[in-house]
Amino acid sequence: MEFLPPDRAAEGLARFRRVRPLVQCLTNEVVQEITANVLLAAGASPAMVVAEEEAETFARAADAVLINIGTPYPARLNAMRSAALGAAAASHPWVLDPVGAGGLPWRNDVIRSFVELRPAVIRGNASEILFLAGEGSGARGVDSTAASDEALEGARRLARSSGSVVCVTGKTDFVTNGERTLAVCGGDPMTTLVVGTGCSLSALVAAFCGAMDDTVEAAALACTMAKRASEIARAEARGPGSFHNAYLDALYLIKPEDLCHARA
Amino acid sequence: MEFLPPDRAAEGLARFRRVRPLVQCLTNEVVQEITANVLLAAGASPAMVVAEEEAETFARAADAVLINIGTPYPARLNAMRSAALGAAAASHPWVLDPVGAGGLPWRNDVIRSFVELRPAVIRGNASEILFLAGEGSGARGVDSTAASDEALEGARRLARSSGSVVCVTGKTDFVTNGERTLAVCGGDPMTTLVVGTGCSLSALVAAFCGAMDDTVEAAALACTMAKRASEIARAEARGPGSFHNAYLDALYLIKPEDLCHARA
Amino acid sequence: MEFLPPDRAAEGLARFRRVRPLVQCLTNEVVQEITANVLLAAGASPAMVVAEEEAETFARAADAVLINIGTPYPARLNAMRSAALGAAAASHPWVLDPVGAGGLPWRNDVIRSFVELRPAVIRGNASEILFLAGEGSGARGVDSTAASDEALEGARRLARSSGSVVCVTGKTDFVTNGERTLAVCGGDPMTTLVVGTGCSLSALVAAFCGAMDDTVEAAALACTMAKRASEIARAEARGPGSFHNAYLDALYLIKPEDLCHARA
Repeated sequence: MEFLPPDRAAEGLARFRRVRPLVQCLTNEVVQEITANVLLAAGASPAMVVAEEEAETFARAADAVLINIGTPYPARLNAMRSAALGAAAASHPWVLDPVGAGGLPWRNDVIRSFVELRPAVIRGNASEILFLAGEGSGARGVDSTAASDEALEGARRLARSSGSVVCVTGKTDFVTNGERTLAVCGGDPMTTLVVGTGCSLSALVAAFCGAMDDTVEAAALACTMAKRASEIARAEARGPGSFHNAYLDALYLIKPEDLCHARA
Repeated sequence: MEFLPPDRAAEGLARFRRVRPLVQCLTNEVVQEITANVLLAAGASPAMVVAEEEAETFARAADAVLINIGTPYPARLNAMRSAALGAAAASHPWVLDPVGAGGLPWRNDVIRSFVELRPAVIRGNASEILFLAGEGSGARGVDSTAASDEALEGARRLARSSGSVVCVTGKTDFVTNGERTLAVCGGDPMTTLVVGTGCSLSALVAAFCGAMDDTVEAAALACTMAKRASEIARAEARGPGSFHNAYLDALYLIKPEDLCHARA
Repeated sequence: MEFLPPDRAAEGLARFRRVRPLVQCLTNEVVQEITANVLLAAGASPAMVVAEEEAETFARAADAVLINIGTPYPARLNAMRSAALGAAAASHPWVLDPVGAGGLPWRNDVIRSFVELRPAVIRGNASEILFLAGEGSGARGVDSTAASDEALEGARRLARSSGSVVCVTGKTDFVTNGERTLAVCGGDPMTTLVVGTGCSLSALVAAFCGAMDDTVEAAALACTMAKRASEIARAEARGPGSFHNAYLDALYLIKPEDLCHARA
């Protein structure tokens, strides 16, 4: 298994902090605040520009776009499609978070229509990625019922069929373009007790893609940041409330040199 | 006055943690994040499935449904009605939080239409419950202007007329089906300085109803959890910011055995 | 440069805490929770009454109204217009936060239509105020690219042309009615790493306007509260996560007598 080389991680984060990428977020109504706060803490500039009238214009100017299908409805889906097209027209990356893929027929059709627009990265949990890869029928609710390594082969197949980099997260995160695969270990399960940590990771993937050229490495670096921040937060937290804040603090405090030493 | 027996509380929480009920939340736009975080911290699995196209399908699969009328609009109200019908069709409990009942004519009609659909539990503050019981004209704004014990008789009458268990919360919380009434004491007034503590308590009531057979005891146990967590949080907090996190930590840390000793 | 006299600040805060103004907030979908929590912590009563069917009725009863154009869409804009008219009909102050003014043509037209309704206060960052004053073309994204003192002359001109008090915030905050100008110094840049601190400051301006007669002084006192709370929070915080909570705690803990001593 290949890992993101520590020096590449450190260089990437240094570049990210210099660029301070502007990330347009069209995400679900539950996690907008934590998504913005994760981006601000890590060093990006979030903008929730979501109106149908301005989503495409703004996407052409933003460094990256996040599209998260958590709470879809017609007007928002129109804005999301416009933003995806605007980003594509400007050759800017956009990331798809297929929340709940597999569980509900109407949503599945919506998500598939976005996969066809060829996002730079699809970031999901194992159940979601397995479903999009044509295996499994999704989870009950929005949490995964499969482990991330069970979805690795599916992720590779989805990457090859879709043309998108696929990022499947869980105990170990995997990022693959179908050829090269990077694994990111570590993290802490308490992360799953704070709503929006997964959704905001997708925003972080978009942000790093907006600052780095190599999409596979950008997504792996976003996952690395989230896993390191989770470990630091867990060491300080008594429960998910204090974890939430410590996680944001850690994203802010992690420096490029902190990523310089290798880690299995 | 009757209280929830400590051994029943401990058994109920142990069962809740094993079941990890899946709770579909259709709540107002202000409190979605804290609602999900309260459920996750306590040990439930929240899912904010709110689209008109999928609300009913999901409600048939969820263990319980929350419907909160805080920021109503046509599409959301349609999804809420579908979810209530889906839950009823599957014999799953759903909880109504009639935010602001009494204060605004249009909202009152909306709320009454949901009461007629016969929720398992109606959870509100004293002003809201008094209004639904046919007394009083509601509060100014969304906070109660009456004490919970002033609403106890109204709660009993509303329970008998509506067929729902009624839970009126405040300094003391009361849960009644019109015959049996349980009181829950304790808590801390700082709870009212964090937005969504009341709304997320309604979600917690739904979650416990999704894991326990006795609706009156389930609602009383949810109130007990919230009051214990408030007391623990208040002991650690300097103000409402630190209280918020300490409250979530406490919900996560409270164990069944912590509820085993009686408490007036 | 003139400052808010410390005794006027102390008197104003004492009055604010007694009145506990009811503030109707129609704000963007990202910051509703922090906006409510800032108002609760400081001592006001927030109510997010946003439905088209009830916005005007409620605005006539509320002490003040906030209108924030962060994530506009047709139904919400209708409710905002109704609320502005309801507040005006009852001679209650309403505050306009022109988020992102200058950056996007459609939004600019929307914002200008609200300026024409003559809010009591327009509260924005330097880029937004410069744009509304007819200078500059707005920022990239929602953060200002100009310093607040660069916008002071523009703020004065906008105040005179619009008939509104203008509050431009940044390193130093300025409040002006075109004749009298108050400056508020201090604060901490970490404030900009928590989403909604600016938006919730606009809500705080509305709240103080709902409790005090002098609009210029009310807006300056709201800015003073935010700057003092930021300084206290920064002294305790490790990063933006812990800052967020410490900021809310500080708003709750600041007492009138803490404002009694002069400060440059």
